[in-house]
Amino acid sequence: MQESMTLAAIGAIVGAVALLFALVTFAAILKESMGTPKMKEISEAIQEGAMAYLNRQYKTLIPFTIIIAILLVLVLPRLDPRVQGGALAVSFLVGAISSAIAGYIGMNSTTKSNARTAEAARSFGLGKALKVSFRAGAVMGLSVAGLGLLGVSVLFLIYKDPVVINSFAFGASAIAFFARVGGGIYTKAADVGADLVGKVEAGIPEDDPRNPATIADNVGDNVGDTAGMGADLFESYAATTIAAMIIGNSIFGVKGALFPLVVGAIGIIASILGTFFVRTGEGGNPQAALNVGLWSTNVMTAIGVYLLASWTFGSEGLGIFFAVLAGLIVNVAIGALTEYYTANNKPPCLRIAEASKTGPATNVIHGLAVGLESVFWPMVFFAGAIYFAFWVAGWIQPTHAIYGIAMAAMGMLSTAGIVVAMDSFGPVADNAGGIAEMAGLPPEVRQKTDKLDAVGNTTAAIAKGFAIGSAALTALALFQAFADEVVRNPKLQHLLTNGHLVINLNDPLVLVGLLIGASIPFVIGSSTMRAVGEAAYGMVNEVRRQFREIKGIMDGTEKPDYARCVSIATGAAIQKMIFPGLVAVIMPLIVGFGLGALALAGYLAGLTATGVLMALFLANAGGAWDNAKKWIEAGNLGGKKVDGQPNPVHQAAVIGDTVGDPCKDTSGPAMNPLIKVAGTISLIIGSVLFH
Amino acid sequence: MQESMTLAAIGAIVGAVALLFALVTFAAILKESMGTPKMKEISEAIQEGAMAYLNRQYKTLIPFTIIIAILLVLVLPRLDPRVQGGALAVSFLVGAISSAIAGYIGMNSTTKSNARTAEAARSFGLGKALKVSFRAGAVMGLSVAGLGLLGVSVLFLIYKDPVVINSFAFGASAIAFFARVGGGIYTKAADVGADLVGKVEAGIPEDDPRNPATIADNVGDNVGDTAGMGADLFESYAATTIAAMIIGNSIFGVKGALFPLVVGAIGIIASILGTFFVRTGEGGNPQAALNVGLWSTNVMTAIGVYLLASWTFGSEGLGIFFAVLAGLIVNVAIGALTEYYTANNKPPCLRIAEASKTGPATNVIHGLAVGLESVFWPMVFFAGAIYFAFWVAGWIQPTHAIYGIAMAAMGMLSTAGIVVAMDSFGPVADNAGGIAEMAGLPPEVRQKTDKLDAVGNTTAAIAKGFAIGSAALTALALFQAFADEVVRNPKLQHLLTNGHLVINLNDPLVLVGLLIGASIPFVIGSSTMRAVGEAAYGMVNEVRRQFREIKGIMDGTEKPDYARCVSIATGAAIQKMIFPGLVAVIMPLIVGFGLGALALAGYLAGLTATGVLMALFLANAGGAWDNAKKWIEAGNLGGKKVDGQPNPVHQAAVIGDTVGDPCKDTSGPAMNPLIKVAGTISLIIGSVLFH
Repeated sequence: MQESMTLAAIGAIVGAVALLFALVTFAAILKESMGTPKMKEISEAIQEGAMAYLNRQYKTLIPFTIIIAILLVLVLPRLDPRVQGGALAVSFLVGAISSAIAGYIGMNSTTKSNARTAEAARSFGLGKALKVSFRAGAVMGLSVAGLGLLGVSVLFLIYKDPVVINSFAFGASAIAFFARVGGGIYTKAADVGADLVGKVEAGIPEDDPRNPATIADNVGDNVGDTAGMGADLFESYAATTIAAMIIGNSIFGVKGALFPLVVGAIGIIASILGTFFVRTGEGGNPQAALNVGLWSTNVMTAIGVYLLASWTFGSEGLGIFFAVLAGLIVNVAIGALTEYYTANNKPPCLRIAEASKTGPATNVIHGLAVGLESVFWPMVFFAGAIYFAFWVAGWIQPTHAIYGIAMAAMGMLSTAGIVVAMDSFGPVADNAGGIAEMAGLPPEVRQKTDKLDAVGNTTAAIAKGFAIGSAALTALALFQAFADEVVRNPKLQHLLTNGHLVINLNDPLVLVGLLIGASIPFVIGSSTMRAVGEAAYGMVNEVRRQFREIKGIMDGTEKPDYARCVSIATGAAIQKMIFPGLVAVIMPLIVGFGLGALALAGYLAGLTATGVLMALFLANAGGAWDNAKKWIEAGNLGGKKVDGQPNPVHQAAVIGDTVGDPCKDTSGPAMNPLIKVAGTISLIIGSVLFH
Repeated sequence: MQESMTLAAIGAIVGAVALLFALVTFAAILKESMGTPKMKEISEAIQEGAMAYLNRQYKTLIPFTIIIAILLVLVLPRLDPRVQGGALAVSFLVGAISSAIAGYIGMNSTTKSNARTAEAARSFGLGKALKVSFRAGAVMGLSVAGLGLLGVSVLFLIYKDPVVINSFAFGASAIAFFARVGGGIYTKAADVGADLVGKVEAGIPEDDPRNPATIADNVGDNVGDTAGMGADLFESYAATTIAAMIIGNSIFGVKGALFPLVVGAIGIIASILGTFFVRTGEGGNPQAALNVGLWSTNVMTAIGVYLLASWTFGSEGLGIFFAVLAGLIVNVAIGALTEYYTANNKPPCLRIAEASKTGPATNVIHGLAVGLESVFWPMVFFAGAIYFAFWVAGWIQPTHAIYGIAMAAMGMLSTAGIVVAMDSFGPVADNAGGIAEMAGLPPEVRQKTDKLDAVGNTTAAIAKGFAIGSAALTALALFQAFADEVVRNPKLQHLLTNGHLVINLNDPLVLVGLLIGASIPFVIGSSTMRAVGEAAYGMVNEVRRQFREIKGIMDGTEKPDYARCVSIATGAAIQKMIFPGLVAVIMPLIVGFGLGALALAGYLAGLTATGVLMALFLANAGGAWDNAKKWIEAGNLGGKKVDGQPNPVHQAAVIGDTVGDPCKDTSGPAMNPLIKVAGTISLIIGSVLFH
């Protein structure tokens, strides 16, 4: 026990070090110049909008969080006196608050770095601009991973029971779902409003300061891409670590529970070291620099885990190391597949561009086809990794096989620090470009930030694949942990065969759960798409109203009312995140308490399968539509204009891109927290279900 | 045994009677006048095109069928000497040929009735036109059900083993998949070609004889909607009957095997009687007449099954009757839900129409949202029916519960005769309208056929729901029958627990199968959508070429080359049905022989869940887009033109409708045979799998 507490303390210390490193990095960023007063003003407006949104989002969630905490304290112990309601409530609140803190830190870091990146590009060049923007991302990435590891380790030191602290992951996932959905609605409502009225109707360029929705649009990049993704991966990180701890604890005892914590610590240290590899000169290739950072992190993590596994598990360590390695490899494979299906020099995307020649309908049909097709190989890789991890971890002792799946998930997530850093730097570069435009900086500044922004689109695609893959493996780990909980539930002993929970697909209750669970991602996809449509509609009307009523906008004599657009997007996002959020939280309770543990297991399996499929389909279709449009805008198939007239091929591609926007930035990303919310809730109620 | 063979003979006799009734009805139709020489000429051109397509489709499938028959004879008995390879091959060929015969009869009936319906509308009025067109549909419906029942009964009389004759269902399902996919590609390629160039570019109305693709378009209505749907339901009918027989056989012995046959016979007799209730006068409501026919069939079937069940199973009969009733009720419920989500006076469709005001992108987004949303309640109904049927059939003897699910499926399909009749009459009315237009009949004739056509759209939606629902329940029945087969497989005894096959979701192989299976409907959806896009592209180019090169088309001095368009659509459909067909057939073999029986069980579960979801999503989204456009065309939101200019709201809705076309008529319908092919193949290889 002495040694094990030392290991947990190592987890806590490394988590704290990561946070410290993030704060030091942040302080270094703040020393950079923000450039001209105009740049400063714009940056502050974006920051103010983003913070206002975050504040309102978290404020809206306070009653929800309190109700759940009360339910945990009052209701669960009545269902089963063994349950430590207080510990669950505390863990839940710590998880929810940690998620919010990670959001605040990340948002502060990215919104305070945008003008500084633009200024770095203006006064120093590409290398410095990459440095500032990537550092901003690293603050986010290391806060996410550091807070996750710190929270789990400290709670484990206090409660010494991984099941109790699963409530930490539940708190994180509940917040993450709302952050993902709300942020996703916000960013797309603002984007559509800015594009449809500003660019198409008024004919002014992207990020033009005369566009009333332009600040909201830039705020959206932060609240959607940065805060949403950060919350999502924070939750994956917490849930996976805890699920692996639960499974490890029941197989190996405390040694198995602590191993994932130390794997997390190794990944964080490797991520910190990896950030130092990310540097480039003026004519350099930022993508290559980022790849060096990512690869070196992967290699260092693999070496560290190999040593740790041999030390901890002896002869069995090799099998467990290979399971972790499988997670790292799937990570790379999904990233490569995501890139293939969405990159604009690859066949899928070119097919969509080509189909635009016969109009928007064929563009949309081919985009749907690309998205649907893109799910197959990732699913094969998941399936292969699951099977391999299971097989290799059970090589010496078959009953240990189940630990392999959890450790594959942990392997995948261990590098979250650098992956989130790579993802978050994109919105910073994007914002920097917006500020360069709005502040009237010379075009070469915008060219440099555009170069970074383009790289950011690729890293964002990789991070999306990472988020989906980690959600899938996390869900599986939670599923196994849930089965473990049911086994321990004294009221459910009649469901066991030889001490194991058998979730037989021949059982109609399992099938019922599977069918209902499988339909939920479709329902969430639908409600989030409609939410974007309705929120965008309000935004379009507001922007039109401002152009109509504030006469001096177009000639620059009057300023548009940016704040009103920000406020409309905020209100709509907050209001419309409620319904999908309630569906995500309440459905597992209905199925679990109404139909029982077996139906809930079926529900989790069905939800995970279609959730991952929908996440891949929507994200990749959206990405491919986006890049098909960009490929045409780069001058192919006639470019934007033919003989001075709008090119109908380009117009068709713009329609496809608009269809893809809510798919890739709202509905698709909502799937990840959806499946994790279901998993963490099930795990909590697993011990109190009564049939 | 004596009595049981009498029951099987009853099945064969009723099947033969249904076929006879179909032929007599067909003869009665042929006595009607075909109208003017012009009408006759057009009708014959459509018939010729449809037959040419069917001939070529079946000819293409001959080598494929022979290869499978040879594999059944040569390979399966080597894997397991108990297997009667010859009997399997014979049953397979009989199934494939019966499916083709049903296709020919149905196609002959509908294509020979179109001009006669138009003439009935011209010379007699609405009542007679309904009579002729519905009779044509009844010929199709009763051929499908009659051939299905006859084939299964006769093969059972010969081989006395339901497992052997499952190969009949496999033959039917293999053909059905190609018929559905090929027909679906044909109809949409022709439709898009005719609409995009004829209506949009050349500005001539629908069904204008100057449009080179107009004959192909009318052929497509027959090969897609009639032959495809007929083959699909023929297969569901055969597969469900056989699955129910296998399960019944293993629970009750031969009594349980024969009960489904007699339920089928009752449904056919009720369907024949039901057709006599379908009649209306000049000012009457054809929809009401069809509803009376459907409801009376349902009630008669329910009464007959109640009596039969009490007689066969004594005190347990009531439970089994309620299981059958659950099938009949789900049928009605899915039909009602399908109508709600697609009818143009209901909120979902109106939302799409409303969204067209902000352009094609928002129209498409809202259409996707409606489709995604529409899956939830049908899935809840399926789940409820499964659970109820299981529970009620196991009320007295829990081990009999599994029979309930099969009998719910059988209950649903027992009324296939009248449902197919209602579905097939739609294309006849549609064709009749086309002929009225092309032959220059007075507008009031077209108004009458349009009235029938509108009713046909609703009945087609009901039939689509029926096809999806029956596919889902059939798949479940096949799944249970597969589990039964595995139990009997001597090499797989290590997979059993207490003599039962346990398909544990905790087993990684089951999960691997589930994930791969779940992704297949996405792959098939993608490949069929692309096929339509590419086939339509060829068609568009051909129609453009004819307008360009045959100068006299537009002023009526030269005739377009209809045959060339028919030939292009045929070639493209045949060529592009191969890939999805191979995926559907080969994937279960790879999973089953490569990963084993448990993975295959997971594959079936995953494939069924997402297959049904995708079928509902694609069909309902497509239907809603279609009706949103029709609602605008009826004069709402500005109608087709505003101030003599094309109304952009309508143009947006047309784009949505075009996106929906392959969804609802190609990719969505392909899901039903996809899940049944997987089920029937698995059932055949279930007894020879070796791990």
